[in-house]
Amino acid sequence: MRKLKLVVEYDGTHFVGWQYQDNGRSVQLVLESALKDLLQSDVQLVGAGRTDAGVHALGQAAHFTTNNAMDSGTLLRGINALLPDDVVVRSVEEVKDDFHARYGARWRKYRYSLSTVPVAVGRAYVWFISHRLDPVLMQQCASQIVGEHDFKAFCKAGTNTPHFRCVVRSAEWKAAGYLLNFEIEANRFLYGMVRALVGTMVEIGRGYRKIDDFDVILKSGDRREAGMAAPAAGLTLVSVSYE
Amino acid sequence: MRKLKLVVEYDGTHFVGWQYQDNGRSVQLVLESALKDLLQSDVQLVGAGRTDAGVHALGQAAHFTTNNAMDSGTLLRGINALLPDDVVVRSVEEVKDDFHARYGARWRKYRYSLSTVPVAVGRAYVWFISHRLDPVLMQQCASQIVGEHDFKAFCKAGTNTPHFRCVVRSAEWKAAGYLLNFEIEANRFLYGMVRALVGTMVEIGRGYRKIDDFDVILKSGDRREAGMAAPAAGLTLVSVSYE
Repeated sequence: MRKLKLVVEYDGTHFVGWQYQDNGRSVQLVLESALKDLLQSDVQLVGAGRTDAGVHALGQAAHFTTNNAMDSGTLLRGINALLPDDVVVRSVEEVKDDFHARYGARWRKYRYSLSTVPVAVGRAYVWFISHRLDPVLMQQCASQIVGEHDFKAFCKAGTNTPHFRCVVRSAEWKAAGYLLNFEIEANRFLYGMVRALVGTMVEIGRGYRKIDDFDVILKSGDRREAGMAAPAAGLTLVSVSYE
Repeated sequence: MRKLKLVVEYDGTHFVGWQYQDNGRSVQLVLESALKDLLQSDVQLVGAGRTDAGVHALGQAAHFTTNNAMDSGTLLRGINALLPDDVVVRSVEEVKDDFHARYGARWRKYRYSLSTVPVAVGRAYVWFISHRLDPVLMQQCASQIVGEHDFKAFCKAGTNTPHFRCVVRSAEWKAAGYLLNFEIEANRFLYGMVRALVGTMVEIGRGYRKIDDFDVILKSGDRREAGMAAPAAGLTLVSVSYE
């Protein structure tokens, strides 16, 4: 048996998310079907993490094992020829037996894009907000989450996880033309975490809440204290890195 | 009567182009309908230039005259509230009587985006080419068209125009991640010109034709000598500038 790692890009607009769902088109299912056609045997993909319905990825990672000896270059071209146009495999790489896309992932990086002017070109990847935002206040919030914190206040209620601590390596708002991009890298992300963080920072950036509230919310551990989740379309899983 | 200038962004994917067509959805028609609803009178838009079916714009310019006294900020918000999500008005500005969106335009700037790896996120705005390209050869072609030249060889056959001379202010291929962007600014563009130029440069960049052919094609004045037109989706009208 060989173990292969894939790096996958997808446009989440028409997907129910990475993970299988009883009803609906998931990225995992689309990839597994194409791999099955190509390799002529069932394939079980393990992803680095789930992404929600409508969330995009530039560099999702996944692994699978196979007996098929097809070289990775041929596999890359073959799989991309079989996939629909909203999923692309960026790379195929043979990895060691002990590689694990989920448990071996060291850092995950997400980007959230928003715009305070309406957008036509690329609108599938941006949240348009019809309010003025103060990026200085939003950056003050971002700076507060760098380091290790309990993010329960920014985790979807009812999530089953042994603990809510995440180590945030970097969190920054960056202007890019008329876009404001929030880039965050952490060892793990809780369910709905980036969208809850962005939704809350936007409420502060537009003056709907005070900057001092952010620390109170973070320490509360109560999802009801945080802001509305930002829409899925603005969120992209940029990359997953391994040791 | 007042004269107003609009700067318009649109995603060309679901349009037959800027200009009215007997059958199909044009940007001009969609804008004029929204302006008519907003201003309660017929409006005739004059665009800086036509864009083909499937071609995008970040900064198309247009003007119209109206008796309506609505201030430009209200007009901007009102029109954007009425437009479908693939068209956005970026700005509304009161201009002098002698302003003309088409005849007064001094420079027009287009960008063509291509990728040699398949793309999922943003695929509506990129031409994917499954060949290796030599950007140095493509830049050599681009450098040859800077200045004033007769571009008949890169103009769709049968185009009715008094002459085919264009002044190219700049023409450059720029790498941006895995994208190769061709940026060209000129005083005017002939019908199908950027797509024919890109199609020809790609044939040279992939080694299908020799670099020396480019000058021969340019001087031939014969569209049949040039390469296939590049697909519309990769092309974006970036801006139109005035004195």
